[in-house]
Amino acid sequence: MMQCCDLLLTAACILTQDAEHTIWQNGALAITAGRIADLGPAEDLRARWQAKTVVDGSSMLVLPGLVNAHTHAAMTILRGLADDMPLISWLTQRIFPVEAGLNPEEVRLGSLLGFAEMLRTGTTACVDMYIHEAQVLEAAHTAGIRCLAGEGVFGFPSAACPSYRQALDITRDLAARWAGHDRLRVAVNPHSVYTTSPDMLLACRDLAEELHLPVHIHLAESPDETARSLEQHGVRPVEHARACGLLDLPCTAAHVVDVTDEEIALLARKRVVAVHNPSSNMKLASGILPLARMQAAALSLALGTDGAASNNQLNMFTEMGRAALLHKIAQNDPTAASAACVLDMATRHGAAAMHDARLGQLTVGGPADLTALDLTAPNMQPLYHPVSHAVYAATGHEVRLTMVAGEILYQDGRFTRFDYPALLQELRAVRSAVLRRAGTAH
Amino acid sequence: MMQCCDLLLTAACILTQDAEHTIWQNGALAITAGRIADLGPAEDLRARWQAKTVVDGSSMLVLPGLVNAHTHAAMTILRGLADDMPLISWLTQRIFPVEAGLNPEEVRLGSLLGFAEMLRTGTTACVDMYIHEAQVLEAAHTAGIRCLAGEGVFGFPSAACPSYRQALDITRDLAARWAGHDRLRVAVNPHSVYTTSPDMLLACRDLAEELHLPVHIHLAESPDETARSLEQHGVRPVEHARACGLLDLPCTAAHVVDVTDEEIALLARKRVVAVHNPSSNMKLASGILPLARMQAAALSLALGTDGAASNNQLNMFTEMGRAALLHKIAQNDPTAASAACVLDMATRHGAAAMHDARLGQLTVGGPADLTALDLTAPNMQPLYHPVSHAVYAATGHEVRLTMVAGEILYQDGRFTRFDYPALLQELRAVRSAVLRRAGTAH
Repeated sequence: MMQCCDLLLTAACILTQDAEHTIWQNGALAITAGRIADLGPAEDLRARWQAKTVVDGSSMLVLPGLVNAHTHAAMTILRGLADDMPLISWLTQRIFPVEAGLNPEEVRLGSLLGFAEMLRTGTTACVDMYIHEAQVLEAAHTAGIRCLAGEGVFGFPSAACPSYRQALDITRDLAARWAGHDRLRVAVNPHSVYTTSPDMLLACRDLAEELHLPVHIHLAESPDETARSLEQHGVRPVEHARACGLLDLPCTAAHVVDVTDEEIALLARKRVVAVHNPSSNMKLASGILPLARMQAAALSLALGTDGAASNNQLNMFTEMGRAALLHKIAQNDPTAASAACVLDMATRHGAAAMHDARLGQLTVGGPADLTALDLTAPNMQPLYHPVSHAVYAATGHEVRLTMVAGEILYQDGRFTRFDYPALLQELRAVRSAVLRRAGTAH
Repeated sequence: MMQCCDLLLTAACILTQDAEHTIWQNGALAITAGRIADLGPAEDLRARWQAKTVVDGSSMLVLPGLVNAHTHAAMTILRGLADDMPLISWLTQRIFPVEAGLNPEEVRLGSLLGFAEMLRTGTTACVDMYIHEAQVLEAAHTAGIRCLAGEGVFGFPSAACPSYRQALDITRDLAARWAGHDRLRVAVNPHSVYTTSPDMLLACRDLAEELHLPVHIHLAESPDETARSLEQHGVRPVEHARACGLLDLPCTAAHVVDVTDEEIALLARKRVVAVHNPSSNMKLASGILPLARMQAAALSLALGTDGAASNNQLNMFTEMGRAALLHKIAQNDPTAASAACVLDMATRHGAAAMHDARLGQLTVGGPADLTALDLTAPNMQPLYHPVSHAVYAATGHEVRLTMVAGEILYQDGRFTRFDYPALLQELRAVRSAVLRRAGTAH
């Protein structure tokens, strides 16, 4: 007997990324009420399901929506403002002067642009940290993307907060505002161990514990961070984070480049999720995440783009390709960082960074968060191994459709939830304001 | 007084990549008889030129067509067949068994797919080496792309040639067949010093000298090649190539990873063009081209994708981004491999690898080889520095239009010279044949 569903999506190939890494050729998904009701051979599903809408993906590769596990979406408004500079002069001369004047509306527009880029390139969930994060969440709500977001907690005044206490108050308000929301969640976001005092980190821990929120922090990004931590706190970053109790909470740690074997073992034991940001680490010459040592310790590893100022894309396909290649050359081993390993980082393991185990895989009963890539693009032909194509061949612009919770958010050049051409118009004024603040004549 | 031209193309921004690296905001190009007749502010050109066709690129970034300075276009048919393997087992177990059975028609179809991918992603010229190269040139002729091509000369029988003498005969025939062609040229292509004998390299040199053809060779790709050269010839690869006279001819050397300072100085003195293939070098863990030492020696450096079996894209935008990031992390210096330096490698310096100084820049009187990228894509917004966007932000799929010699070859999803959907149909049989030969059931 036929059952009813909202949408039936067929596909040349479905990479489920479930626990068995099941792949369906000539498959289909039945989607109803935001969830996957059925999944398997297209022929079988057509016989079982009566759909309100059928989307023909017979020339498409369907995979779970990718998880961008560490980003600063609003930094799209700084994309390409300054590149190829030493880290400190880049930050102090170019980025900080602009960020010091950022207003909430600029953050909202920049975030919406960032989410547009992510949906356009197959990302359905992200972990975000910035200032004026209330506007980031508003933008995520507009775009429809899943977002784990938190106000950056700094030891010095930000454009949004005169003190860290206000950042924590904002976090508390945001947690109340979005409590129980299916797509939006709030984290406590101490920026790093070198931009906060121990008191602040302890206050972050207390708030996270009280409200049952996860923690998201930049951790051990570079040897320079380690030197600062030793100077300020007398210990290395991971030990400092541990001493302040941050690792006893659900914790997503971004970068994790400069770490010892003992620190990796500690992070693994504490079930911290480390987020690899290969583009940013390469562009800023921060160092290379010790992948082999982390894999040996079974540390959970997700993948992120970092912000557009240091990437300059928010494209998880770009990030997957670079991750796979970086570790091959770094380890002098072409078998390192296989396509399957990297795709796991961008999907199943990204779910851990979101602290939401439902994500990053396509399973019956799970949320219908997915993306569909056009296999007729020249770079996707011919198709032997779909996992290889997702990591090595795709650019992300083969994406024809991206949905979250069964809702199509991007399809064939159009964003369904907001007026993209109007956003581009609004961004013109933001660009002018950024240039004024940067003191650059254009 | 108004002059007449074939086509007027406006642009939000034109990166000319001329000697002064002139950039025009709100610019235009007047194109007639395949050449750029005029170039400058759109307002001025509109007042001066009466065009048969006007293309509105007011939301586009126009730059010279990119030069893919080392590739094996036909290897698209092996894209993703095998990845993440050690080099020797990858070659002997996966690539060679398939290549041993390749027929000319398969090479033609694979090459046409490769050229489609290149045109789709803004490449207008390439240096190609493979077997059955007559078919590669036929495919280039069909697609309209510029190509410097040559039959691979090996010391063992290839699927195309029982002996190296036949490869040289084919080279001679091809040189005669395409003599004087504007877009297609022939090179003498010894595969490498470790797959040929000194006699063969001397015969290659003699033929190149006789016919005034350039040489294209894989050179110093990895420490393994160096070890083989020392074992076979008693000298390192560069010295062996020099001793066989190859460096006294116009020479394009691919990879050039494992070289000493003395070898770099020699290559620079001989005006050899080295081609950097960062994706392939990373994916196969071949090593890292010594960029800083080469720049210090003023060695001419172009950029290439290598074949799709070891990349797996033929996308020069992907390649530019990876080149820029690889050398920053390798040199621990975020100022290394600037966007401007990398864009030069993909344009102006690519012209040197093609041995055609007209290419890789947009100048009055020069060929109208260019590509136009959509700046309204989320990842291209906002725009502060167009060179940064070309290298760091673009994926290559923002390309809306690619032309060679004033002729539009790709525009908005359509290839003008051939039936792309029919090509995809023909490739189905090629895919099946490849799988049969690889002994892989799919």
